[in-house]
Amino acid sequence: MPVPYTAPLADMRFVLSRLLGIADMETADAVLEEAAKIAGEVFAPLNEIGDRQGVKFENGKITMPPGFRDAYQAFVAGGWNGLPVAEEHGGQGLPWLLAIAVQEMMQAANIGLALCGLLNQGAIELLSVHGDDRLKQKFLPKLVEGAWAGTMNLTEPQAGSDVGAVKSKAVKEGDHYRITGQKIFISYGDHDLTENILHLVLARLPAAAEGTRGLSLFLVPKILVNDDGSLGKANDVRAVSIEHKLGQHVSPTCVMTYGDNGGAEGYLVGQEGGGIAAMFTMMNNARISVGVQGLALMERAYQQARDFAKTRVQSRPIENPKAAPVTIIHHPDVRRMLLSMKAHNEAARALAYTCALAVDEAKQENSAAALRVDLLTPIVKGWLTDLANEMTSTGVQIFGGMGYIEETGAAQHMRDARILAIYEGTNGIQANDLVFRKLGRDNGAAFGVLIGEVENFVAATKQKNREALADAVGAAKDSAAWLLQNVKSNPALAAAAAAPFLRLCGNMLGGYYLLRMAELAQDDLAAGNGGADFLKGKIISADFFAAHVLPQNAALAETVKSGGGPVLAMSEAMF
Amino acid sequence: MPVPYTAPLADMRFVLSRLLGIADMETADAVLEEAAKIAGEVFAPLNEIGDRQGVKFENGKITMPPGFRDAYQAFVAGGWNGLPVAEEHGGQGLPWLLAIAVQEMMQAANIGLALCGLLNQGAIELLSVHGDDRLKQKFLPKLVEGAWAGTMNLTEPQAGSDVGAVKSKAVKEGDHYRITGQKIFISYGDHDLTENILHLVLARLPAAAEGTRGLSLFLVPKILVNDDGSLGKANDVRAVSIEHKLGQHVSPTCVMTYGDNGGAEGYLVGQEGGGIAAMFTMMNNARISVGVQGLALMERAYQQARDFAKTRVQSRPIENPKAAPVTIIHHPDVRRMLLSMKAHNEAARALAYTCALAVDEAKQENSAAALRVDLLTPIVKGWLTDLANEMTSTGVQIFGGMGYIEETGAAQHMRDARILAIYEGTNGIQANDLVFRKLGRDNGAAFGVLIGEVENFVAATKQKNREALADAVGAAKDSAAWLLQNVKSNPALAAAAAAPFLRLCGNMLGGYYLLRMAELAQDDLAAGNGGADFLKGKIISADFFAAHVLPQNAALAETVKSGGGPVLAMSEAMF
Repeated sequence: MPVPYTAPLADMRFVLSRLLGIADMETADAVLEEAAKIAGEVFAPLNEIGDRQGVKFENGKITMPPGFRDAYQAFVAGGWNGLPVAEEHGGQGLPWLLAIAVQEMMQAANIGLALCGLLNQGAIELLSVHGDDRLKQKFLPKLVEGAWAGTMNLTEPQAGSDVGAVKSKAVKEGDHYRITGQKIFISYGDHDLTENILHLVLARLPAAAEGTRGLSLFLVPKILVNDDGSLGKANDVRAVSIEHKLGQHVSPTCVMTYGDNGGAEGYLVGQEGGGIAAMFTMMNNARISVGVQGLALMERAYQQARDFAKTRVQSRPIENPKAAPVTIIHHPDVRRMLLSMKAHNEAARALAYTCALAVDEAKQENSAAALRVDLLTPIVKGWLTDLANEMTSTGVQIFGGMGYIEETGAAQHMRDARILAIYEGTNGIQANDLVFRKLGRDNGAAFGVLIGEVENFVAATKQKNREALADAVGAAKDSAAWLLQNVKSNPALAAAAAAPFLRLCGNMLGGYYLLRMAELAQDDLAAGNGGADFLKGKIISADFFAAHVLPQNAALAETVKSGGGPVLAMSEAMF
Repeated sequence: MPVPYTAPLADMRFVLSRLLGIADMETADAVLEEAAKIAGEVFAPLNEIGDRQGVKFENGKITMPPGFRDAYQAFVAGGWNGLPVAEEHGGQGLPWLLAIAVQEMMQAANIGLALCGLLNQGAIELLSVHGDDRLKQKFLPKLVEGAWAGTMNLTEPQAGSDVGAVKSKAVKEGDHYRITGQKIFISYGDHDLTENILHLVLARLPAAAEGTRGLSLFLVPKILVNDDGSLGKANDVRAVSIEHKLGQHVSPTCVMTYGDNGGAEGYLVGQEGGGIAAMFTMMNNARISVGVQGLALMERAYQQARDFAKTRVQSRPIENPKAAPVTIIHHPDVRRMLLSMKAHNEAARALAYTCALAVDEAKQENSAAALRVDLLTPIVKGWLTDLANEMTSTGVQIFGGMGYIEETGAAQHMRDARILAIYEGTNGIQANDLVFRKLGRDNGAAFGVLIGEVENFVAATKQKNREALADAVGAAKDSAAWLLQNVKSNPALAAAAAAPFLRLCGNMLGGYYLLRMAELAQDDLAAGNGGADFLKGKIISADFFAAHVLPQNAALAETVKSGGGPVLAMSEAMF
């Protein structure tokens, strides 16, 4: 039975309008309401069949389940694929902030399908920034429209997280290159949603340097495109097999072979040797998007658990054992779990949208915003996807025995979520990125600006939870200072402390945004703006977070400072 | 490809011999070594096919995958089914402590299959304590041998955690009863491993009281047994369907119908109206066993992740970026995750085995031990199964992208584990049991004795981590005192704080046992007893736990004291 999804428009609106102070809420409302329709009415009803039936690979051809092609076409017809793309490239030219909010809905409704659009966005970004005019003219319009899809081809069997170990080869031949090699874990490497697929492939030219510096990026179409834009013959690339995964069954994860018959025709994107730089253009936004996938599944799991908890009658209330059995939302431990999901969702959304707004600001040559994006990106990716694992599991727990039955749908969110902490750079890699690059490279300057912002809020607010936030900020400063002393002199020790530090930063930021939203909700409540239950719920989310989450930061700071020692002392033979 | 399992005999031995001071290690070693063989060589190789192929339900008949019947027969032939059963009932009469260690191995090797033996043990216990001589004579020998299997039939669609809502009916008819009703979530409700199945069924007599007091317990055989012990005709009971579950695919979870044709023949076990009391005899031990299932899957996931981390080469070491790529166990964050799995396993094993030893002592009329079992049981069940969810997920993370591919087998442990925090009383129910019954009923007396034991250790030890443990104990005392002030006056507030309190207790006990084992390892190291790497690894597990886990207790104590308020303030409409 399909699980319904209703986009949390009131919550989204509260973040955009009140927390971020977006002036043009008319455009935002119009976009979000339309997106909510396609997410709730077109994408969401297919989520369960996508999981159950999955994608089929037969005779070298990949087939999506019934309904998916139509749903994708509806997405494309609505102009959603090119939402944040500049109008000069055929897009809608809307802010990233709105694109991220739309992404939340699509991913929540049907993460397996929505991943296709997410990959398209990355390919568009790469091609529009790094492609030459000829490439852009030939490929960009169809890609922006969504008539053709895009993929990212980085991983190889020997090169998972270590992109520098890529071995695929490219050899120049006239105005193009011949690509040969094998890639694994290629999401949407093949499918029948679009008439063509543009693969963006990392490969190595003859005599190129070792490591990442020797990598170049190539556009390799599934079907070659004639000069008049019509489709020509098939290129020398094919999906060899698909993976049998824990979740996201409808997203085809392919092993790709390039050059079975002499080499696939490919076109250089950017400079020779510039592959990794080009990839990084795209990677940061993709990491934010994966964080948003985490938020999306947390929200979906929350909605389902909440609806179940409000309708499932079971046992008498603990405070009155003679009363009739009640819906399980009345049992304090169930309510605790549900409130944990709600508060974490709200914190996650506030963080992700704040980061997306900074992306828009950074595009306006705002260097402070660019630094903020850099700093927040690993936290958005790492914290939100760790939370997605935890909160989708909490959703299963609320369902009790029914949560273990696949037909209920609660377990699907947990299975779908489990890859998020792994792909687009594992969360261990995010934590290292945070500690060594984002914190370490400017000796904590950008981090200090962020801390200053939170401290200013703490100093100014009259919130009852400000002490809890002050302690959490203190813990963050304390551990950042310790890390800065060690990143250069003892990088292994700092790396062993990176994951707890990322968690601590996420908790602090989550608390900061929830307290700010509680303050705004208090104002709105006093002014009579908005529904009282909704606003009180925001205040209680902050109270919950201050009592259940922020106290952990003191413990995490201790772990950052003293936890690396035992990790490094443990030799391989002792395991 | 089957994932190997090697029973951690050295770790088990260390707990039994050093931590618990078991004198007769000769018997223990002999039993554990034999069990390790059947677990590793017979059960473990079938784990993957059990997951992939699952159990089949066709034409009303349930078929286990190939090999499972033989594996079960090997288990039975070895006398494992009756290991802890008194010799007078045909068992081996060995201590529960050894039975629990054997359970750990069987559950780790193949949890879906081993569950059958676990259910048999519960049925044996019920029947041997509460059955009359006639029932025992007729049914117990075959059940103890394992030729017949046993099941527990509590749950009904309207009565999940609320056993008092059971509606199944029993009507007296001569020397037996006629049972009618429907039961759901019945593990091993039907299968082809044994020639008969004995269902233990909760049902309600006409005019019985409402709630749990009105429940009686009946033995309902699948096939009626003639007075000479031969099998007669089929009873009026059948499996109607099986569930499609997230994990444990090989354990058939059945919807059972009793009395399609007038009523199934059943025999009263214990007194009329004594059903729930009889069930509770069995429930406590079953809860310990479910905790051990958690330990088992943590250990299995750890072994697999460790072996992968020691062989998978990926990326250069962070402290020397010019060196060649290394196995991922050299990356500090991977090592941190692996050490977290190891330390938690060791803590979990120490707690479970300590509790099992207390079960044996309690059987010798030791009332202090009985109170200790009561107190530890919800912690063993709740803490170990929460950890199983977390640690099996950590195992997937260590595998990176490979962890998301089902063929790797890492995800299976996570899926198999996900029911443990739910069945045999959800962990929310365990937390309430801990707070209201185990802590509250004697106003904290039994808890105080446990705290005293830990405090005595802290006072006597010279361990460098004793301050961390002292703080963790202080947090436990503090929150227990707060709870005792509220259990009667504000039970809902105490219930909202129950889950963090259970976690805190688990952390404290885990730290206590790890520190004790570190001290013993230090002694052994000084005396030159045992492998140095093994012993140093024990010391480092304690160091890790003191730096990464024990600091959380101060935060959890804050949450216990201040976290219930927001939970109760959140009205249904605010969600």
